[in-house]
Amino acid sequence: MAKLKGNAVIGQSGGPTCVINRSLVAAVEELKKAHQITGIYGARHGVEGILAEDFIDLGRQSNAALARLENTPAAALGSSRMKPKPDDCARIFNVFRRYDVRYFFYIGGGDSAQTANIINELARSEDYEFRTFHIPKTIDNDLLGSDHTPGYGSAARFVASAFLGDDLDNRSLKGIKIDVVMGRHAGFLTAASVLGKLDEDAGPHLVYCPERTFSFDQFIADVEGVYRRLGRCVVAVSEGVATGPKDEDVVVREAGEVMLADGVRTELPKDAHGHPQLSGTGILADYLVYRVRKALTPTHGKLRLRGDTFGYLQRSFPGVVSEVDAKEATEVGRLAAKFALTSDVDGSVIIKRKPGARYAVEITYLPLSKVALGERQMPASFINKAGNNVTQKFIDYAKPLIGTLPKAGLAQSKLIRKR
Amino acid sequence: MAKLKGNAVIGQSGGPTCVINRSLVAAVEELKKAHQITGIYGARHGVEGILAEDFIDLGRQSNAALARLENTPAAALGSSRMKPKPDDCARIFNVFRRYDVRYFFYIGGGDSAQTANIINELARSEDYEFRTFHIPKTIDNDLLGSDHTPGYGSAARFVASAFLGDDLDNRSLKGIKIDVVMGRHAGFLTAASVLGKLDEDAGPHLVYCPERTFSFDQFIADVEGVYRRLGRCVVAVSEGVATGPKDEDVVVREAGEVMLADGVRTELPKDAHGHPQLSGTGILADYLVYRVRKALTPTHGKLRLRGDTFGYLQRSFPGVVSEVDAKEATEVGRLAAKFALTSDVDGSVIIKRKPGARYAVEITYLPLSKVALGERQMPASFINKAGNNVTQKFIDYAKPLIGTLPKAGLAQSKLIRKR
Repeated sequence: MAKLKGNAVIGQSGGPTCVINRSLVAAVEELKKAHQITGIYGARHGVEGILAEDFIDLGRQSNAALARLENTPAAALGSSRMKPKPDDCARIFNVFRRYDVRYFFYIGGGDSAQTANIINELARSEDYEFRTFHIPKTIDNDLLGSDHTPGYGSAARFVASAFLGDDLDNRSLKGIKIDVVMGRHAGFLTAASVLGKLDEDAGPHLVYCPERTFSFDQFIADVEGVYRRLGRCVVAVSEGVATGPKDEDVVVREAGEVMLADGVRTELPKDAHGHPQLSGTGILADYLVYRVRKALTPTHGKLRLRGDTFGYLQRSFPGVVSEVDAKEATEVGRLAAKFALTSDVDGSVIIKRKPGARYAVEITYLPLSKVALGERQMPASFINKAGNNVTQKFIDYAKPLIGTLPKAGLAQSKLIRKR
Repeated sequence: MAKLKGNAVIGQSGGPTCVINRSLVAAVEELKKAHQITGIYGARHGVEGILAEDFIDLGRQSNAALARLENTPAAALGSSRMKPKPDDCARIFNVFRRYDVRYFFYIGGGDSAQTANIINELARSEDYEFRTFHIPKTIDNDLLGSDHTPGYGSAARFVASAFLGDDLDNRSLKGIKIDVVMGRHAGFLTAASVLGKLDEDAGPHLVYCPERTFSFDQFIADVEGVYRRLGRCVVAVSEGVATGPKDEDVVVREAGEVMLADGVRTELPKDAHGHPQLSGTGILADYLVYRVRKALTPTHGKLRLRGDTFGYLQRSFPGVVSEVDAKEATEVGRLAAKFALTSDVDGSVIIKRKPGARYAVEITYLPLSKVALGERQMPASFINKAGNNVTQKFIDYAKPLIGTLPKAGLAQSKLIRKR
């Protein structure tokens, strides 16, 4: 069969990660080697750039520029939160036809796989020869079909490092510390808070993921229990914890209702999809601190209570990158291009973990529709029975993904006898 | 003169840093070499540990434990916010006498220098042979007498890295982003936000330090100006910005009054010294976001507005350490011990920068009273006339202190011609 000749378009979509540009650069490098590729176009801000015909020439970037790019966090082409409607997809397809685009690579999460799938179906229905590949990325680790997703390992490394440091800080100056971690429906990133624990007494002592219904009574009792035992308590809470089964019951909504004065903020800020905005506000951590202070002060007196929200740092911090994650982000980009160029297929790249004690993966692909289908959450076996911590099974799963953390340790407890 | 023989006590005080344990380990290593030192005692939680006679044996730590400790953020001995009263100092001195303590090293900020000074004066007034050295640390960089302070370089590296990443994130998904950085009276750490800027258009586009009176009118106008020009805006704000000259006028107090409902939070949380608590709450960032939203929405419609508070991560994050800072933290610890052991003096270790184009320092000491005297702020020449950014002079001052940041870069802007 003759090789399909034409231009390639690459775009990036959704929340950026620290390694998403590695996938981009690897795909470009692979496409540059292929004679059937006439031009490599980078769409600025994902589908928005395609609709606006706003492309930059990725085939003519200097090697130095590509090398720098690979090491740069966040989406270098610009990202987008747009979910194109059928109408938009038809317009995108028309742009592709006009620019003789025969290869489309979309780096993103589940929504991006869905967009890629719709455009691919359109091309197929019009007998337009076309190859589409979705290249996975998300710090949330919630894509279907993969053992894990590029971007997660580095964000998890940031979260594990942050808790390692914050726990040591909390040992230095004792108190109750509540840290809010990203993750609307999936707790993988919040769960990663435990991966740097130094010893039995290390925090986070409590971990709350959105997979389990959040109860304030249990939360307060849990915190008080740890505080009685250790004189301190470090807590990891996912931004998406909810007291009920629906988005409408996320705790942050209650926080807004209870904490904010009438007329000052009458409703919570909403994100581009109309959900309550979770990140980029300190309200959830502040509310949890407020609830703990109110509940425990009568018994325990004045408490040193602090709340931090990790915010956007956890997905964009340069230099805190998991080597495994970096390597796999490169591989999914390279292989997406290779699959599209050499096999007569479309798909979404997935990572499978090979069985065995030593960590090893196989990178292959699934039909686009399979990955676009929905979101993955933490399996039940990753969360303990009480719903306030993770299990060893989660640790075994996640530890190989974050790389080796900086070595740290406490002084040996050799006491001087009192005189 | 015969060498003064006896035990040594080391303690740590104030907010931890990423390199404070390097000073500790270096002092211990130096003391271990000296035959006149009979025991090296680590006071748990600073002066609190001395009062409680809660000491661990630092002279009998394994080499492996010391090596790990050196690399560990936060105060390994435990820290303290206690400012001992004259009565407490007399009790501390009595403990020292009872334990035959002849050398006292206190690693901390200005308050710690003051405590060390009081105890030293007591010993002198009682003709008790005694050597005291204050070893400087603070992420705020606000100690008198030094060009800069160990701990600052690594925290500044964290802040510069965070803004480098957050600015790239903000280029990916445009909007107005407000980040709150630690620093009650000194803006050095907030100013460090500019040190990773990639190009002319890079954020932070605006920087507000506590050295200048904060004006909401100017702030809103500044943000709108940048937003009109670039379609986005990244802002660095010090947690200590104030609309008036006193602590009572910090913006966070206004935030509490305006934003929080009656009866839910009737007053702002206060820290151990009775000041309004600035860190460990997202209230300031949220309030600034609220004010910008209210002011700009009528003209600009719905805005993507986010606020993050860097919180405790900036002083305790493992693995984000400036090499220069690490080296100097080691040197101030080693030299404090050396000065006390070989010269018949007490003092506070200071860092002087040598003149010349290449960065080089001289480490020496001042009398304890000189460093205990007050707090340093940013010199006027480090802040621009408008009070909304730093100057090149600040950049020249601070850049050598943070080490080399991870290389990053954007794609070359080679546009594809529209068809």
